[in-house]
Amino acid sequence: MSRGLKLYYDFMSQPSRALYIFLSTNKVPFERCPVALRKFEQKTPEYRKNVNRYGKVPCIVEQDFRLAESVAIYRYVCREYPVAPHWYPADTVRQARIDEYLSWQHLNIRADVSLYFFHVWLNPLMGKEVDAAKTDRLRDRLKKGLDFFEHDLLANGKRPFLAGDTISIADLSAACEIEQVKIAGYDPCGGRPHLSAWLGAVRERTNPYYDEAHKYVYRLAPDHISTPAVPEDD
Amino acid sequence: MSRGLKLYYDFMSQPSRALYIFLSTNKVPFERCPVALRKFEQKTPEYRKNVNRYGKVPCIVEQDFRLAESVAIYRYVCREYPVAPHWYPADTVRQARIDEYLSWQHLNIRADVSLYFFHVWLNPLMGKEVDAAKTDRLRDRLKKGLDFFEHDLLANGKRPFLAGDTISIADLSAACEIEQVKIAGYDPCGGRPHLSAWLGAVRERTNPYYDEAHKYVYRLAPDHISTPAVPEDD
Repeated sequence: MSRGLKLYYDFMSQPSRALYIFLSTNKVPFERCPVALRKFEQKTPEYRKNVNRYGKVPCIVEQDFRLAESVAIYRYVCREYPVAPHWYPADTVRQARIDEYLSWQHLNIRADVSLYFFHVWLNPLMGKEVDAAKTDRLRDRLKKGLDFFEHDLLANGKRPFLAGDTISIADLSAACEIEQVKIAGYDPCGGRPHLSAWLGAVRERTNPYYDEAHKYVYRLAPDHISTPAVPEDD
Repeated sequence: MSRGLKLYYDFMSQPSRALYIFLSTNKVPFERCPVALRKFEQKTPEYRKNVNRYGKVPCIVEQDFRLAESVAIYRYVCREYPVAPHWYPADTVRQARIDEYLSWQHLNIRADVSLYFFHVWLNPLMGKEVDAAKTDRLRDRLKKGLDFFEHDLLANGKRPFLAGDTISIADLSAACEIEQVKIAGYDPCGGRPHLSAWLGAVRERTNPYYDEAHKYVYRLAPDHISTPAVPEDD
């Protein structure tokens, strides 16, 4: 029996894509509720009242229960629905490693990517100036973050996924974050063979949903950045 | 039998204080390993190699196992040690609510507090200029975040703790974040009676450890901010 799970999301939001892919890959039945960030639909009083008091996507709703924050939603879905155990293993050390990455990510990879994306891609769209010196600073920060990912988190390829030999919610969340900078013209895979192989492995294990959720990323990324063929629209 | 848990911490770090209080209140045996952030001890190659690859506090070490990020550490300790269940209840909805807050906090209350604290208090110590317009912007952001806490998260006093009627790791983590702005001369309790009552309740339920961990906060806060009497040094 369906529990009436609704997912509020926008494919321009990294954690929205990750959750969409996660639910789809695990065959969790859910109702698609797109929210247009470009129209600020997530900031309306109705949305805040009925869906997410924080005024953000993604969010899930099940009857009277509303839950925001993708990290909290992953854990809830893993408790409440039949999800393949490798996504969030019961093993205490692997679970701790996944929790550690997902907590660390907020002020690191996610911030590195989002600050660059906002400044370089979103600001001009909003009529705001792009400061060249700030762009350089943010690009340096982004490079440093992605290099740490390549060399330390993936241990230069000795660790195929972030928490061991199988894909977990940490990988999916990280991949969807990192894809976002392609829109702003930065190729995260350039000069990073292990990150590149890992990104390909995450995509391969979650397709066709990965490509579906990334169709706007693929379309918006400039030509010099290699992306898969864009899936057809529904 | 003690499992040889070591906590690496500095009382100037919000999540370090929260973990110290959490372990102490729950009588989890641990070895105190202070790390002096003011001397950048967390950035040394030895520390990164032997304790925390992310170069931060807090961190725990148990033999070969090293775990960073306070949110991950709470969950690990709750799985592995006898901890009173109200800190992280098995009930799926309350657990989800706690996860939601702890995830949301990173880029909201924690960022609001840290940005203000760094700009107003830490920058001058490091010989950096304090920009008045930026201070105003950061203070506005901080006020907005704390007002949301007062009116929405605590529901204007209708919700005594963040995830129900009893204290949880979300409350302890939030309280230690919010205390930090007192050092920078901002009183989070001023004009916020519910936040003030809640902060007092978190303190009351975790003393004497709360006051011990906050002794530097109490000492460094300027006189116009009311703080409890400073505990004696060890």
